[in-house]
Amino acid sequence: MENMAFQALHCPVGANASFALGLPGSGGGFGLEQDRVPTQDVFIGLEKEGRIFCFPYYAHAVSAAVDSFVQTSTAEEEGVLRSYGVQDIRREYRYGSDTFEAGPLRFSIATPVRPLPDPAVTPADRMEEAVCPALAARLTVDNRGNPQPVRAFFMVSPMKGMTRLSDATAGQMKGMCSKDGYGFGVRNEGDSLLEAADFDLPALFGRRHPVMLTIAPMGGLLFTVPADTQKTFELVLGWYRAGAATGGEMRCTYLYTRYFPSLEAVLRYGLTRSRDWWEAAEESSRLLERSALSPERRFLVTHSVRAYAASTMLLDHGGDPLWVVNEGSYMMMGTLDLSVDHCFFELRQNPWVVKNQLELFADRYSYYDQCGIAFCHDCGTHQVFTPAGNSSYEIPNLRGCFSYMSQEQLCNWILMAGMYMERTKDAAWHARRLSLFRDCLHSMTARTGGRPDGIQHVDSSRCGDGWEITTYDSLDPSLGQSRENLYIAMKCWAAYLCLEKLLRDADPEEAGQALACAQRCARTVVSSFREDGGYIPAILDGKDRSAIIPAIEPLVYAVWIGERALLEPGGMFGELARTLRRHLETVLVKGVCLFPDGGFRLSANNTNSWMSKIFLCQYVAQEILGVPVSEEADRAHAAWWAVNTASCPAIDQILAGRSAETGFHYPRGVTTALWW
Amino acid sequence: MENMAFQALHCPVGANASFALGLPGSGGGFGLEQDRVPTQDVFIGLEKEGRIFCFPYYAHAVSAAVDSFVQTSTAEEEGVLRSYGVQDIRREYRYGSDTFEAGPLRFSIATPVRPLPDPAVTPADRMEEAVCPALAARLTVDNRGNPQPVRAFFMVSPMKGMTRLSDATAGQMKGMCSKDGYGFGVRNEGDSLLEAADFDLPALFGRRHPVMLTIAPMGGLLFTVPADTQKTFELVLGWYRAGAATGGEMRCTYLYTRYFPSLEAVLRYGLTRSRDWWEAAEESSRLLERSALSPERRFLVTHSVRAYAASTMLLDHGGDPLWVVNEGSYMMMGTLDLSVDHCFFELRQNPWVVKNQLELFADRYSYYDQCGIAFCHDCGTHQVFTPAGNSSYEIPNLRGCFSYMSQEQLCNWILMAGMYMERTKDAAWHARRLSLFRDCLHSMTARTGGRPDGIQHVDSSRCGDGWEITTYDSLDPSLGQSRENLYIAMKCWAAYLCLEKLLRDADPEEAGQALACAQRCARTVVSSFREDGGYIPAILDGKDRSAIIPAIEPLVYAVWIGERALLEPGGMFGELARTLRRHLETVLVKGVCLFPDGGFRLSANNTNSWMSKIFLCQYVAQEILGVPVSEEADRAHAAWWAVNTASCPAIDQILAGRSAETGFHYPRGVTTALWW
Repeated sequence: MENMAFQALHCPVGANASFALGLPGSGGGFGLEQDRVPTQDVFIGLEKEGRIFCFPYYAHAVSAAVDSFVQTSTAEEEGVLRSYGVQDIRREYRYGSDTFEAGPLRFSIATPVRPLPDPAVTPADRMEEAVCPALAARLTVDNRGNPQPVRAFFMVSPMKGMTRLSDATAGQMKGMCSKDGYGFGVRNEGDSLLEAADFDLPALFGRRHPVMLTIAPMGGLLFTVPADTQKTFELVLGWYRAGAATGGEMRCTYLYTRYFPSLEAVLRYGLTRSRDWWEAAEESSRLLERSALSPERRFLVTHSVRAYAASTMLLDHGGDPLWVVNEGSYMMMGTLDLSVDHCFFELRQNPWVVKNQLELFADRYSYYDQCGIAFCHDCGTHQVFTPAGNSSYEIPNLRGCFSYMSQEQLCNWILMAGMYMERTKDAAWHARRLSLFRDCLHSMTARTGGRPDGIQHVDSSRCGDGWEITTYDSLDPSLGQSRENLYIAMKCWAAYLCLEKLLRDADPEEAGQALACAQRCARTVVSSFREDGGYIPAILDGKDRSAIIPAIEPLVYAVWIGERALLEPGGMFGELARTLRRHLETVLVKGVCLFPDGGFRLSANNTNSWMSKIFLCQYVAQEILGVPVSEEADRAHAAWWAVNTASCPAIDQILAGRSAETGFHYPRGVTTALWW
Repeated sequence: MENMAFQALHCPVGANASFALGLPGSGGGFGLEQDRVPTQDVFIGLEKEGRIFCFPYYAHAVSAAVDSFVQTSTAEEEGVLRSYGVQDIRREYRYGSDTFEAGPLRFSIATPVRPLPDPAVTPADRMEEAVCPALAARLTVDNRGNPQPVRAFFMVSPMKGMTRLSDATAGQMKGMCSKDGYGFGVRNEGDSLLEAADFDLPALFGRRHPVMLTIAPMGGLLFTVPADTQKTFELVLGWYRAGAATGGEMRCTYLYTRYFPSLEAVLRYGLTRSRDWWEAAEESSRLLERSALSPERRFLVTHSVRAYAASTMLLDHGGDPLWVVNEGSYMMMGTLDLSVDHCFFELRQNPWVVKNQLELFADRYSYYDQCGIAFCHDCGTHQVFTPAGNSSYEIPNLRGCFSYMSQEQLCNWILMAGMYMERTKDAAWHARRLSLFRDCLHSMTARTGGRPDGIQHVDSSRCGDGWEITTYDSLDPSLGQSRENLYIAMKCWAAYLCLEKLLRDADPEEAGQALACAQRCARTVVSSFREDGGYIPAILDGKDRSAIIPAIEPLVYAVWIGERALLEPGGMFGELARTLRRHLETVLVKGVCLFPDGGFRLSANNTNSWMSKIFLCQYVAQEILGVPVSEEADRAHAAWWAVNTASCPAIDQILAGRSAETGFHYPRGVTTALWW
């Protein structure tokens, strides 16, 4: 990893909150329930002999805010400010922390990746720590060898509606809070620490004494470091939203409000826990570093897990926990076609959240069309739950983006249920949902339209005169159209396998039907292989000639429900696996499904490629089909994120290695969890 | 008034909320606790034979939001949309309403200007109506003569986190609400009304059936108007902020939350009251129209009262009402040097709010410096109350903007108290605050530094090595410096007059001292008149030669405490009045204190002139000093607002007729209340 100049999101879990830092010349800072990467100016540095040395994580060295008061233009005083250049900064971007060093300064943020215990069965003191919407950060200033004290600073601008943390904590801490629901602070050490608010750094250091000018945009802390001393300041960064966090169908609060009455309480608590958080962060980092993953893959894993955390909301709905992952900056809630891919992360990390979402969609966000049960795309957008049975995304009479995904979401719910059961053996839940599994089977088979090939031929009646689409909603029919689609045929195959297993003990006859359907799907896919081209076309209508990678995706579910043996040579689906291997070997070449830089091109028809799905397909290729993936691919993908889209962490849809970079950090990249 | 193409803010009282409309090519729409004029696209119009006709109050005909989903550029479809041009629109901008007519469309908003009853003594049913954070609006579509039905629309974009009002009101209303605390609706009339959400109008009307696509930014209502029919739809626009509305020193809710549990409750209630609101609006308009004011002055009155309403917050602090006026888009709370000028509006409208603020500043936002008591500039910013005894604005060691205004704020509190007592004869309050009046007198005299001229010679110790400034904070010393300033000398004169009256019955000796001080001030001012120039210099140091208008301002307080007779020829301050008249006649000429367009230039040294203070000085000139003010001046001032700063309603500081127009709507313009 050569380039370390990229934006990163550092986030507590379940708070829909983030602290962004890392792209020189760009802002970052605090975000809460935002559909954009934060753009505050973050000033971290020190003043020495009248000069200000600063990490370059800001866009505006001088605030224009003063102009509105004095009605004259501010003289540019940027000369006073010396930003460290990219070449001066050493960055360690680890799984559990992010550290920046330049000159005598070192700043780190801890983001341990830890299990989130199930609130229904976990004692309050453990939950309290797990859900506390705060992070630990450290600022170290090395003033050894200098006979003068220096003043270091941690400042954020703009902060609206500032209050001093010392006022709110009876002097226990110093720091700054904003009415917009975030703040930061340190343990009060007396006069060597100062809370200050001013227009900008030149204004602040231009005064003999720092001031608390709360009409000005910049607020933060000044730390005095004595002569010839190295000193570390332990910061806590926190977020808080009181009261109703969601509206519409369900009014929820953040679950952390059970334990913390206010932002100040969060920050105070964080102070008592930060040592543990640093230890946990170190442990997380070591875990990933002990894996065999390349530096590029470690970066992709780390980046994706952070964007995922940014998107999470752990809510309290009338006393019950409710888990919602926002679709990144799109802010759709609990999108089911993402959730199925989040399972690879969550079933290791927090299996209970998978069940939580299965229940939510079973109880409220499912519907019946002419074929039987189906599931909604999502359960709302921008903190507002849609009316039961409706998503925020799907509308009728379309043949592209925003149409229904009934077949795929039906598969997704089944696949999640199958993987969840395999992981947890949750017999009570299985018993309660048995009739729903049957409903799912009937709905699946009804969507074949009675045709013997086992694949989808019928669009949901909810589509009106449109047709169903897939999670690849913005692509051409090769991946965008659901009916007779190879990718969906394979998802149906995997869903039937899940249903077979879910029904095996309770209803051997229906289980047998499910298996028969899986076999029909497999036969259809295998028989669609074109010996002339050496691959399977994307649309199974006998006419299409498109080449895609994601045909192989659904093999992963067979493995995750413990049926890997079926894919072995001689196994029931050995031929399917073999055929897909041949398919993949044919298409995985430059000019077809590889870009010139070696990155994966999911559809040969389209420059739009999806990072989360690339990671998933890389896993299937290497670990299930035994098709090697070059390190060139990983280098390309790492560059797409770290260089080409450096301002927006973890964008999913990348067009020929680039993107508009308008803030589409995306949670689904946690398919990287498959790698290790 | 030729130009009617300007932005206007329509606001319920006490909710810090607004609906902006009126500038073609510019957005507007809903704002809540915003420091900017809202910039939503507002689409009001109709679709007829495949063409969309629309008022031009939007900036973006086609939304770019869809691009983030489909990752391709949207074709511009602006051709489908026909905006009415300025020449097609008839606008009636009245005191109680704002009406736009074009083609078959007519849209009006009602903003009645009514007293706000004192919550402490008013029955709940009357308070409920007075504080309801909602406005009535009307859309009339004339489809007579057309054999086809048409579809009219009222749409706003972007609205985040949309919910259908029909869902929240069990079908009683239809409309759209945003999680950001605003919404609108009409009585449900069945299928002729539709709630819809989509990307933009071309997308909406491009579908056969409107959809509810809540991930898209635009939401609103579609109204079917039958063939050959004229129909009026009664809309309610509402705002709502639940829970804590302020932080810092005092945690308050909006007082309206006592009566309304939710936005939906506000809108439902509005529906039942809108007929009365329209009647009250008509009454307000007629009241102003029956006055003798010119169209320009009627516009200035109307514009200023709306910006004032936009800035108001009626809060509930532990069961007690708390009145706070924000300093427009600067968002400083309860700024005292504005409040004294708001009295001319509020003592007629709602005297209890003046007392409410006097109490707040007496109890929490006063302090003692080396001279005695003084009052803070404000009590916070951006919904956060500063710690008691501190404003958000004042800091030490400055000689300009952001320094202390101790002397002027002391005067301001005394002047407000004097005017309040004259208006209400509130003996109980007078008795309770008597010792504070005495403190004020001692503090006033201490600030003369023992000099016999009665004017300020001592800066507050809070200034450190800086010095005090005045409300004219961004001006040169002619109006910006407090010490030995003519404007402040006159404010001291008026404050002493008030103190004399406040102390007259209880303590004749101290009252006599106060009057003696007033006489000293008056003598100093009169003796500073320069016969050679025919005016009084702005700084009374014997060296300054600046010419300013606001020397005459404080005469208004003498009148408002019932002491007009003192200014008559032969009265105790007849000579003072006569001298100020000569001063004004000298400076009120083009090239000195008039701009080339005839507009008032408050300081000959500066192009920065302050609308609210101009209105006040116009009143003093005409009604107290008998100096005529030309209609040319009113025409100039109306043009400064309606033409030169048309995008930002009621900016106070105007530089040679213009301004940066960055959102500085300002409440103090209600000094126009003096005119009628």
